Amino acid sequence: MQTPSKSKKATKLFTSGKKGMPPGSLIYTGKQQSQEIIIEVIHFSKDNHFYESKTITEIQDLDTSQGKYWINIIGLSNVDIIKQVCDKFGIHSLFIEDILNIHQRPKLEVEQDYLYVPFKSFHWNDAEMLLEYEQFSFILLKNVLLTFQEHAGDQFDGLRDRISKVDSVVRNKGLDYLFYRLIDVTVDHYFEAIENIGDHLENLENKILKHPHTEDIGLVQVFNREIMILRRHVFPLREVLFRLSNADHPVLDIQTRKYFLDVLDHTIQVIDTIETYREINFSLRDLQLNTISYEMNRVVKTLTIISTYFIPVTFIVGIYGMNFRYMPELNLRYGYLFVWILMILVVIGLTVYFRRKKWF
Amino acid sequence: MQTPSKSKKATKLFTSGKKGMPPGSLIYTGKQQSQEIIIEVIHFSKDNHFYESKTITEIQDLDTSQGKYWINIIGLSNVDIIKQVCDKFGIHSLFIEDILNIHQRPKLEVEQDYLYVPFKSFHWNDAEMLLEYEQFSFILLKNVLLTFQEHAGDQFDGLRDRISKVDSVVRNKGLDYLFYRLIDVTVDHYFEAIENIGDHLENLENKILKHPHTEDIGLVQVFNREIMILRRHVFPLREVLFRLSNADHPVLDIQTRKYFLDVLDHTIQVIDTIETYREINFSLRDLQLNTISYEMNRVVKTLTIISTYFIPVTFIVGIYGMNFRYMPELNLRYGYLFVWILMILVVIGLTVYFRRKKWF
Amino acid sequence: MQTPSKSKKATKLFTSGKKGMPPGSLIYTGKQQSQEIIIEVIHFSKDNHFYESKTITEIQDLDTSQGKYWINIIGLSNVDIIKQVCDKFGIHSLFIEDILNIHQRPKLEVEQDYLYVPFKSFHWNDAEMLLEYEQFSFILLKNVLLTFQEHAGDQFDGLRDRISKVDSVVRNKGLDYLFYRLIDVTVDHYFEAIENIGDHLENLENKILKHPHTEDIGLVQVFNREIMILRRHVFPLREVLFRLSNADHPVLDIQTRKYFLDVLDHTIQVIDTIETYREINFSLRDLQLNTISYEMNRVVKTLTIISTYFIPVTFIVGIYGMNFRYMPELNLRYGYLFVWILMILVVIGLTVYFRRKKWF
Amino acid sequence: MQTPSKSKKATKLFTSGKKGMPPGSLIYTGKQQSQEIIIEVIHFSKDNHFYESKTITEIQDLDTSQGKYWINIIGLSNVDIIKQVCDKFGIHSLFIEDILNIHQRPKLEVEQDYLYVPFKSFHWNDAEMLLEYEQFSFILLKNVLLTFQEHAGDQFDGLRDRISKVDSVVRNKGLDYLFYRLIDVTVDHYFEAIENIGDHLENLENKILKHPHTEDIGLVQVFNREIMILRRHVFPLREVLFRLSNADHPVLDIQTRKYFLDVLDHTIQVIDTIETYREINFSLRDLQLNTISYEMNRVVKTLTIISTYFIPVTFIVGIYGMNFRYMPELNLRYGYLFVWILMILVVIGLTVYFRRKKWF
Amino acid sequence: MQTPSKSKKATKLFTSGKKGMPPGSLIYTGKQQSQEIIIEVIHFSKDNHFYESKTITEIQDLDTSQGKYWINIIGLSNVDIIKQVCDKFGIHSLFIEDILNIHQRPKLEVEQDYLYVPFKSFHWNDAEMLLEYEQFSFILLKNVLLTFQEHAGDQFDGLRDRISKVDSVVRNKGLDYLFYRLIDVTVDHYFEAIENIGDHLENLENKILKHPHTEDIGLVQVFNREIMILRRHVFPLREVLFRLSNADHPVLDIQTRKYFLDVLDHTIQVIDTIETYREINFSLRDLQLNTISYEMNRVVKTLTIISTYFIPVTFIVGIYGMNFRYMPELNLRYGYLFVWILMILVVIGLTVYFRRKKWF
Repeated sequence: MQTPSKSKKATKLFTSGKKGMPPGSLIYTGKQQSQEIIIEVIHFSKDNHFYESKTITEIQDLDTSQGKYWINIIGLSNVDIIKQVCDKFGIHSLFIEDILNIHQRPKLEVEQDYLYVPFKSFHWNDAEMLLEYEQFSFILLKNVLLTFQEHAGDQFDGLRDRISKVDSVVRNKGLDYLFYRLIDVTVDHYFEAIENIGDHLENLENKILKHPHTEDIGLVQVFNREIMILRRHVFPLREVLFRLSNADHPVLDIQTRKYFLDVLDHTIQVIDTIETYREINFSLRDLQLNTISYEMNRVVKTLTIISTYFIPVTFIVGIYGMNFRYMPELNLRYGYLFVWILMILVVIGLTVYFRRKKWF
Repeated sequence: MQTPSKSKKATKLFTSGKKGMPPGSLIYTGKQQSQEIIIEVIHFSKDNHFYESKTITEIQDLDTSQGKYWINIIGLSNVDIIKQVCDKFGIHSLFIEDILNIHQRPKLEVEQDYLYVPFKSFHWNDAEMLLEYEQFSFILLKNVLLTFQEHAGDQFDGLRDRISKVDSVVRNKGLDYLFYRLIDVTVDHYFEAIENIGDHLENLENKILKHPHTEDIGLVQVFNREIMILRRHVFPLREVLFRLSNADHPVLDIQTRKYFLDVLDHTIQVIDTIETYREINFSLRDLQLNTISYEMNRVVKTLTIISTYFIPVTFIVGIYGMNFRYMPELNLRYGYLFVWILMILVVIGLTVYFRRKKWF
Repeated sequence: MQTPSKSKKATKLFTSGKKGMPPGSLIYTGKQQSQEIIIEVIHFSKDNHFYESKTITEIQDLDTSQGKYWINIIGLSNVDIIKQVCDKFGIHSLFIEDILNIHQRPKLEVEQDYLYVPFKSFHWNDAEMLLEYEQFSFILLKNVLLTFQEHAGDQFDGLRDRISKVDSVVRNKGLDYLFYRLIDVTVDHYFEAIENIGDHLENLENKILKHPHTEDIGLVQVFNREIMILRRHVFPLREVLFRLSNADHPVLDIQTRKYFLDVLDHTIQVIDTIETYREINFSLRDLQLNTISYEMNRVVKTLTIISTYFIPVTFIVGIYGMNFRYMPELNLRYGYLFVWILMILVVIGLTVYFRRKKWF
Repeated sequence: MQTPSKSKKATKLFTSGKKGMPPGSLIYTGKQQSQEIIIEVIHFSKDNHFYESKTITEIQDLDTSQGKYWINIIGLSNVDIIKQVCDKFGIHSLFIEDILNIHQRPKLEVEQDYLYVPFKSFHWNDAEMLLEYEQFSFILLKNVLLTFQEHAGDQFDGLRDRISKVDSVVRNKGLDYLFYRLIDVTVDHYFEAIENIGDHLENLENKILKHPHTEDIGLVQVFNREIMILRRHVFPLREVLFRLSNADHPVLDIQTRKYFLDVLDHTIQVIDTIETYREINFSLRDLQLNTISYEMNRVVKTLTIISTYFIPVTFIVGIYGMNFRYMPELNLRYGYLFVWILMILVVIGLTVYFRRKKWF
Repeated sequence: MQTPSKSKKATKLFTSGKKGMPPGSLIYTGKQQSQEIIIEVIHFSKDNHFYESKTITEIQDLDTSQGKYWINIIGLSNVDIIKQVCDKFGIHSLFIEDILNIHQRPKLEVEQDYLYVPFKSFHWNDAEMLLEYEQFSFILLKNVLLTFQEHAGDQFDGLRDRISKVDSVVRNKGLDYLFYRLIDVTVDHYFEAIENIGDHLENLENKILKHPHTEDIGLVQVFNREIMILRRHVFPLREVLFRLSNADHPVLDIQTRKYFLDVLDHTIQVIDTIETYREINFSLRDLQLNTISYEMNRVVKTLTIISTYFIPVTFIVGIYGMNFRYMPELNLRYGYLFVWILMILVVIGLTVYFRRKKWF
C-alpha cells in the first residue's frame, strides 16, 4: 500500500504552509528548489512576434506600452525576483504573497488596473495513484499577461505555437482572449485527470463484484480523498468564471465574455462528473460491504452444512465406540449395517430440511 | 455480469472526448460511422407541404424567406457538411463545435437571431440493462428549425405525419410550436426509460427480500449508475425549459410559453420520479445488507443449535470410549442405559435453555 | 409478503400513463370502469339551496349567472362527458387532459377566468399496508366550482350537510371559501394517513428491538416507499397554497387569503411529520442492522463458549480411546480419575479466561 | 425497555388531534382534565402592582385602558371560558382554535391590534427518558399580555417576583419587554433540556465503546426521536424571533428589537447544539455497529483458534482409536509417544501459522 | 480511553452555563480562578509607545482622547472590574454579559460608537487528544481597542513586538488594522489545530487498513466530535468577516476592508479543510467497518476450511472405532490402508472443491 505517501501529499494541499508568520511575509510555501527562475517573454501584435528568455534586469527595463506581452515566470523559489517583477507592474503586495503561497483557492481579485486569478492544474499520476497539482497565477493587465508557475513544462505549448502563427485567432485577439485560452486548456486537463479516476473506478467495481480484497478497501479510500481534493479546487472556479463572464473591467473586452461562459460550461460539466464519481465511489464502498457480507454468508453456510451433516453421524459412531460391557446392539448380526442405515436416514433427513430452507 | 461493457458506456458519457484539442476545432466526438449524412427537409405552410431529402448544395441554394422549414440532419460524422449547413444559416462556430460534441449538457443559448438547445434522448436497452442515449441539437431560427441527430430513426415519426395533415395543430402553428412538440415527445420518452428501471427495481426488491444473490448486488450498482446518468441530463433541462417559458425572443411566440411550462411540468415529474427511484435504489442496498445479515444470523443460529446439542453428547460418548483398565461405569449392568438417560437429560436441558433465549 | 402488489401500485403512481400519445389526446389514465358518470349539482345562495343529480344535457342548459354552483363530476372514464362539461365552462383543453391524467402533481394554474388545482386525497389501507389515493381536480370559476373525482364516496359529506344549513359559514361565504374548505378537509385527511403509518412505525420499532424478523425488513422498505409517495404529493402543495394565499384573482376574495394561509400552515405541519417519519424509518433500518448484528454476536458467543469448553475435553477423552498396545496411563489404578480431574481443571481454566474477557 | 410509552408520547406530538372536525370547531386537543381554569391577573405600572386570581366575570368587567395587565390563563379544558376571554379582547376565532390545539408549530401571527405567538416549553423527564412539553400561547395587545398554559406551575415565577419589585427593569418597561422575558426564560430552558440529553449521549458513548448492549441500541433510537422532536419545535422559532426583531407594530417598542435579537442569538445556539447532538447520536449508531462487529471478530477469532488447534489433533487420536486388526503403529513400542510428538508438531506448526497471520 | 474527560469538555462548550439566571445577570461562566485580573495597556502613536500594566483606578482616570490604546484584560473572574472597564468606555450591559459568557458564538455587534466581536482561539492538545479553546472578546472604539481573554499567554506576542517598532505597519496604521491583525493571527492558528487533526487522521487511516483495533473505533468518534466543535465555531466567523469587510462604520477605515476580505479568504479555506476532514473521518468509519468485515471473512474462511477438511475424516476414523462384533472391514488385511486412501481422496476432493470456489 502506498497510501501513506499519497495522503501526505493530500494533507499538504490543505495547509497554509506559513503558520505563525506575520501577514505580508513573502515566503514560497512549495518545495524549495535549486532551480533557476526562468522569465519567458512572448511579445506579439498583428505584425510582430518574438519569444525569448529575459533576465530580471531586462524585464525592469521593458517598455510594455506597445503590443501585447505574455510574461511567464517559471519557478517561485527566488522570492526577490518575483517581488521585482510584481513591483515593476504595480501589483499589490497581498497578491505577491498569494502567488508564493501555492495553497491558494481559485479566486478572482479585481483591482483597478488588473485582475488576479490563481488556480491549479491537475495531473493524474497513475504509478502512485494520486493527483499531482501545480499552482498557476494569472495577472491580466492592459498590455501584459503575467503568469507564474512552479515548474518548467506545462500544457500551454500548443498555445505558444499558435501565437507564433500570423493568422491564428489568439494572435489577433486581445490578451484577455489568451487569458481565456490558458484557463480553457487547464480546465480541459481536468477532464483528463477525472477520466483517469473514472477508469480506475470502473475496474475497481468489477474487481469488487468478483471478489473483494484488502487493497480494494484501501483504493476506495484513496479515490475518495483524491476526488475530494479535486472537488475542493474546481468548485470555487465556477464562481471565478461566472464573475469573469459578467465582469466589466478595462482589461476585458465585452466580446470575451461569451468565451468565459463557455469555459464555465465546461467547468460545470467537470463538477458534475466529479460529483457523479464521488457518488459512484461511495456506492463502491457499500458494494464492498455487501459483497463481503454476501461472501461470508456463503462461507458460513458451507461450514454449517458440513457441520450439520457430520456432527450427528459422528455422534452416532461415537456411541458404538463406547466400551460398555453390556451394549446389546454391538453383538447384533446386522448392528453395523443398521448403523449405516441410520446414518443414511439422518443424511436424507437433513437434506430434506436444507432443501426446504432453500439452502441448496 | 455485463457490468464492464455497461460502465464503459456510462463512463464515456462523462468525457469531453476532445482533450488536448484547441477550442474551435470541429471534431465529432461520437463513434465514427461510414454512414452518409442525410438532410431531410420538411417545408410546410398553411397551404403547402413537401418532405424530401436534399443534398448539401441544394440546401445552400435554398430560399427560406417563405414558409416554415424543418431541416433535420442525420449523422454527424461528416464535419464539413455540418459546417456548411450551419454557415448557411449564420450559426456561430462555438455552436457547431457543440453540435459535434455529443457529450453536451442540455442548455439554452440565446443569440440575436436564433436559439440553440442541445439535449439527449434516452432509451432503455433491456437486453444489456443500460440506457442508450443520442444527442439531439435544435436550432430555432425565424423560418427554419434545424435539428441534428446522430443516427437514423427517432421518436418523431408521429410528428412528421401530423405535419403532413392540413388541419393538424402543428401545421398551423409556428415553428416554435413544432420545436415544443419535439421536446415534449422526447421528455415523454424519458418516462418510458425511467419506468423500465422502475419495473426492474420492483422485481429486484422482491428477489432481495426472498434471497439475496451476487448478481443482485451488481444490479443495484448498475441501476445506481444508470439513474445517476439520467439524472445528470434531466436536471439541467429544468432550467432550459424554465428559461424558454420566460424567454422574450423574436423566434418564440408569446402563446408558446404556456406549452413550454407544460413540458417543464412533465420534466419536474420526471425528476421527481428519478429522485424517488434513486432513493428506492439506495434503500435496496441497505435492504440487501439487512437481508444478508438476517439470513446469516439464521444460518449461524442453526449451526450453533446443532453444535450445542451434539458437542456435549459426543463428549459423553467419548468418555466411555476410553480404554482405561479401571473404569467402574463400563462394567455396570445398566451403564449404557444410564449414558442414554444422561444424554437425553442434556438434550432436554439445552432445549429448555434455547426456549428461554427464544431461539425457536 | 404482499410487497409485490403494493409496489405495483406505487410504481404506477409515477407513470404518465400515456407515453407515446400526442399531446392533446384526451385519455383517462386510471383504471377503466363500467361505472356511470354522476354529475352532482349543489346550487346555493343566501336564500336558496338545492342538491340534485343532473345529466350532461341539463348541465349544458344550466344558467349559472345567478347564485353559487358546486358541480361535482364523479367518474372519469367517459371522456366525452368530461370534455362537454369543460367546454361548457370554457376550460382550456390542456386542463381537460390534466383532469383525465390521474398522475398529476398538485399545481395551481391561473387562467384569466378561473383557477385549476389538481390534487390527491390519501387513505391508508391497513389490510394491504399501502396508501390508496384518488385524484381530485378543482376548477374555480366566478359562479361555479367544478370538482372531478374518480370514484363515488369522498370526505366531503360533512361539507354538503353544512351547505344545506341556512346559517352555516360556508353557505354565506363565496365559492372560494367552499374551495378552501374542500382543500382543508383533504389536508386534514393527510394527517390521518400519516398517523396510521406513525402507529405502525412505533410497533415496528418495538418488534425490532425485541427480535428482528424478515417481514420487518420488508416492512421498513414498504414504509419507506409509501412515505416517499406521500411526500412527493404533499411537497408541491406547499407552493400551491402559498401562491393561493398571495393570489390576486377575480374568483378569490381577499378575505379568503387568511384561510389559505391556515391550510398552508397545516400542510407544513404534515410535511414536517412526513420528514420526521422518514427519518425515523431510516433509523429503523439501522436499528435493525444493529440488532441483527448484536443478536448474531450473542449467538456466535454461545457457540464459541460451548465449543471452547467441549473441544479440548473431547480431545482428552479421544486420547485415551486410542488402542496403542503400550499406553502407560491406561493401566494406572486412578488413570480414569486423573482424566476427570484434568478435564475439570481445563473447564475451570477456561471459565477464568472467559471471566477475564467479560464474556459472562 | 420503556420505549413504547415514550414513543406513544412522541407520536402524539405530531397529530392534529382533531381530524374530521370542521374548521372553526373549538376543541381542546390535550388530555381532558377535571382541573378548574385559573385566571391570574398581574396589574402593574410604575406605581401600582397587584396580583390576584379573577373569575371570568371579573375579567369581562375589567377595564384595561390604564396600566399594564398580564393575564395568565391556566388550564385549557374549559373551552367556553377561553372563548369568553378571547372575545373580551377581540381575538379572531382562528387563534382561539390554535390556543386550544396543543400541537401548534411556533409561529408569529400579526394582526392589526395584537400579535399571536404559540410555542412550547420543554422539560427533560429523566426517569422516563423523554421530553415533556407544554404549549404556551402568547397574545400581546396594547395594554394586555394574554398567556395561556395547559398546567399550573411554570418557569416564570422569577419574573412574577421581579414585577412586584418597584425598581425592576421589567416593571418599568413595557409589556413587550415582559413578553420578551417570557420567551427568553423559555429558550433558556431549552438549553437545560438539550444538555440533559447531551449528558446521556456522553455516558452512552462510553458504554458502547466498552461493550455494546441491546438497551444501548434502543437508547440511540430514543434519543434520535427526542432530538428530532425538539428540533422540529425549535427550528420555526428562529423565524418567529427574526420577524419579531424586525416587526414594526404598535404593541412593540423599537427598543425591544435588540432584545429579540438576543433571544434569536440564543435560539440559534440551541439549534446548533441540537444539530451537533443529532450528528453525535447518528455517529453513536455507527460506533455501535463497528464495536459489535469488532467484538464479533474477536469472538470468532477465538473460536477459530481453538478449533484449529484441536480439530486436527482430535483427528489424530481418532485414527488410533480405530479397531482394525492390522494397524502396524498400534503395536509399536513408542507409537503412543510418536503420536504425542506428532500432535505437538501440529500445534507448533499452527502457532507459527497464526503468528504470521498476526492473530496473536 | 480518555474519551470521557474529553467529551466532558466538549459538552460544556455547548452549554449556556447560566440557565435559570435572569438576563442581565453578570456571571463569568468559565472556571473560577483565584488569578488576579491583569490590565495591559499598550499606547502608541506615530511617535510614542508605552506598554504597562495598570490598575482599574488608573484605567478609570485614563484620558484616551489622544493616540491609540490597546487595552487587554487578562482573566474574567473578577466581574466587578470587567464591569468598571466597560462602563468607562460606555459598553452596553448586554455585551458585558457576553464577554463574561465564554460560550458565545462568534458574532459582530454594531453599535453607534463601537464594534463588539467575540470569538475563540483553538489549540490542539495532543496529549489528551482534544481541542482547547479560549474565548476572546474584541471591542473596537475610536481610540481604544479593548480585548478580553480568560488566561495569560496568547498568540499575540509577535504583534506586541511589532507595535514597539517605530516603522512597523501596525504602528502606523489605525486600530482597525491592529484589530484585523489579531483576528488574522487567530485564524492562522486554526490552521495549526486542524492540521494536527489531519496528521492524526492520516495515521489512523494507515492503522485501520492494516488492522482495526478498538481504540481506533474510539478515535474516529473523538475526531468526529472535535471536528464538529471546531466547525461550529468557525462557520459563523465567515459571516462576521464578510460583514466587517462591508461595514461602513466610523471606527473602520475603508482601506481595512481589503484586509478583512483576506482573512475571510483564509477562513473559507479553514472551513473547506474542516469539511474535507469531516468527510475523511466519516469515510474512516466505513473503512473500519469494511476492514473488520473483511478480516472476519478471512477468519471464518480459515475456520471453515479447517473444519471442512477434518470433520469428514474424523467421522471416517470414528466409524472404525466402533466396537461392533461383526464389522467386516476391520478384519481386512488392507483395511487400515484403504481407510487412509479413502481419507486422502476426501481431502483431494475437498481441495478441488475449494479451488473451484476460489477460496485459495
